Amino acid sequence: MTPEWIAVDWGTSNLRAWAMGAQGVLASAGSDDGMGKLAPAQFEAALLRVIAPWLGSGVTPVIACGMVGARQGWVEAPYRAVPCAPAAPGDLMAVATADPRLQVMIAPGLRQDKPADVMRGEETQIAGALALLPNFDGVFCLPGTHSKWAHVSAGEVVSFQTFMTGELFALLSQQSVLRHGMGGEGDDDAAFQQGFADALERPEKVSARLFTLRAEGLLNGLSPASARSRLSGLLIGLELAAAKPYWLGQRIALIGAPALSARYTAALAAQGAASETLDATACTLAGLAAARGVLQKAKP
Amino acid sequence: MTPEWIAVDWGTSNLRAWAMGAQGVLASAGSDDGMGKLAPAQFEAALLRVIAPWLGSGVTPVIACGMVGARQGWVEAPYRAVPCAPAAPGDLMAVATADPRLQVMIAPGLRQDKPADVMRGEETQIAGALALLPNFDGVFCLPGTHSKWAHVSAGEVVSFQTFMTGELFALLSQQSVLRHGMGGEGDDDAAFQQGFADALERPEKVSARLFTLRAEGLLNGLSPASARSRLSGLLIGLELAAAKPYWLGQRIALIGAPALSARYTAALAAQGAASETLDATACTLAGLAAARGVLQKAKP
Repeated sequence: MTPEWIAVDWGTSNLRAWAMGAQGVLASAGSDDGMGKLAPAQFEAALLRVIAPWLGSGVTPVIACGMVGARQGWVEAPYRAVPCAPAAPGDLMAVATADPRLQVMIAPGLRQDKPADVMRGEETQIAGALALLPNFDGVFCLPGTHSKWAHVSAGEVVSFQTFMTGELFALLSQQSVLRHGMGGEGDDDAAFQQGFADALERPEKVSARLFTLRAEGLLNGLSPASARSRLSGLLIGLELAAAKPYWLGQRIALIGAPALSARYTAALAAQGAASETLDATACTLAGLAAARGVLQKAKP
Repeated sequence: MTPEWIAVDWGTSNLRAWAMGAQGVLASAGSDDGMGKLAPAQFEAALLRVIAPWLGSGVTPVIACGMVGARQGWVEAPYRAVPCAPAAPGDLMAVATADPRLQVMIAPGLRQDKPADVMRGEETQIAGALALLPNFDGVFCLPGTHSKWAHVSAGEVVSFQTFMTGELFALLSQQSVLRHGMGGEGDDDAAFQQGFADALERPEKVSARLFTLRAEGLLNGLSPASARSRLSGLLIGLELAAAKPYWLGQRIALIGAPALSARYTAALAAQGAASETLDATACTLAGLAAARGVLQKAKP
């Protein structure tokens, strides 16, 4: 098996790669050699450890997105400023490699000057989503560690905004005083909806509601599953309160992990907002393919 | 030097003790043997390591407040329910000790059932503040890791609310993605006021403003001092937005560390709210003295 090209999603914590043929994915592989633990000189070896089995005698194009293109990454791929298309001809950053079988190109991230914001990797998922939903006009929501909301119109990202929802959830549930009441597994949908409604209606009260979770655990025996679900609802509610100008009255598509996307779907539905959900990996692959296709058209 | 009694403030991270005479403090000492690192059987030895030099041949009363009375502490001193006076006769919890020179008593914390909330240690500072400001009617604000706002009237704590402001600041500035742009020292008062005003006016936007700090660092070179001060302003602004029913139109007294109290004073002043500031240690000592005095009156 020799792939036509190799797709790479290279984030802070992980590296994922797919061997791509004419019909799509031939094989996939990955490692935990994320950008966060590599010096620039270590990226090529980390890539080869994952994709070497797929390389033939010729040159194989490798298209990568994510934090690999950050200033602290392999080679910096400077941000492109919105409004702009999420993938653009000629803006892939070529990376010199010692191994002559590699032709590595990194997709740049997007920047917004006011309010200041940046993304790396999500622009490729948005490009893929536009390939999967041609003529989409509305907002993409990419929930996660740093949730992104992007307004897309006429094939361009018009504006976007980042929320630290997932990172706040991780810090509060695992490292703050709230961790004492959040161990174990399981979800409580009613508690999620209660937290969500509280935060959406009274967002200014969220920092008070946080400690209430601890106090209810001490005084009323609030279960860890309920506390964790209510925390998730509070933080997603705070995000949706701030993102309202994005989603109100718009077509909404979610791009994210299934369980998390399902929470956003339920939360939006509780506000009367319908949404559709796209598979995150499918969007990444379609976006990298779009970047490559654009490249080929630009350099025939 | 033999003290009449010994005052102890025993929190999660630290133990502080004062040898008290008729005229006030004779000596002070402390250690990092906080409640968080001690099993119940280890408390007496930890206390003796700090106060043994002050003990005479007779029995010395030791009055302690703080997390030492938590369920995971030395001996649980059950919460008292508000509305109630912050210190009460007969509610000190006596602790059995092996050393016959010790007579240890722990001040109980306060609980509020709806909305659920708890405090341990702050009730003693409030009791002290009432001793220092007799007939005070208004709100006490105790800024810190878990900031407390307490409405006090006719010598009783009527209601209170806890905000995780200090813990959020520590987690976000030291452990989140924002840490990359927050190293170093120094304050930026204008940035603090900007963050504070932003959060107070649009509290629902705070979770979006957080990532803006990172993006402005990347795109516009926002300085670490400005980023840290703006983060502080955002979180204190969020707290004051939620605590508005407490402070609006009320007499306000702050009990806290000088630098942090100064930030709250400036923030409240920007909203046209005057406040006075009390020294936190003076309040703790006055509160422990009040608890002891009350005890003596109750058991003549």
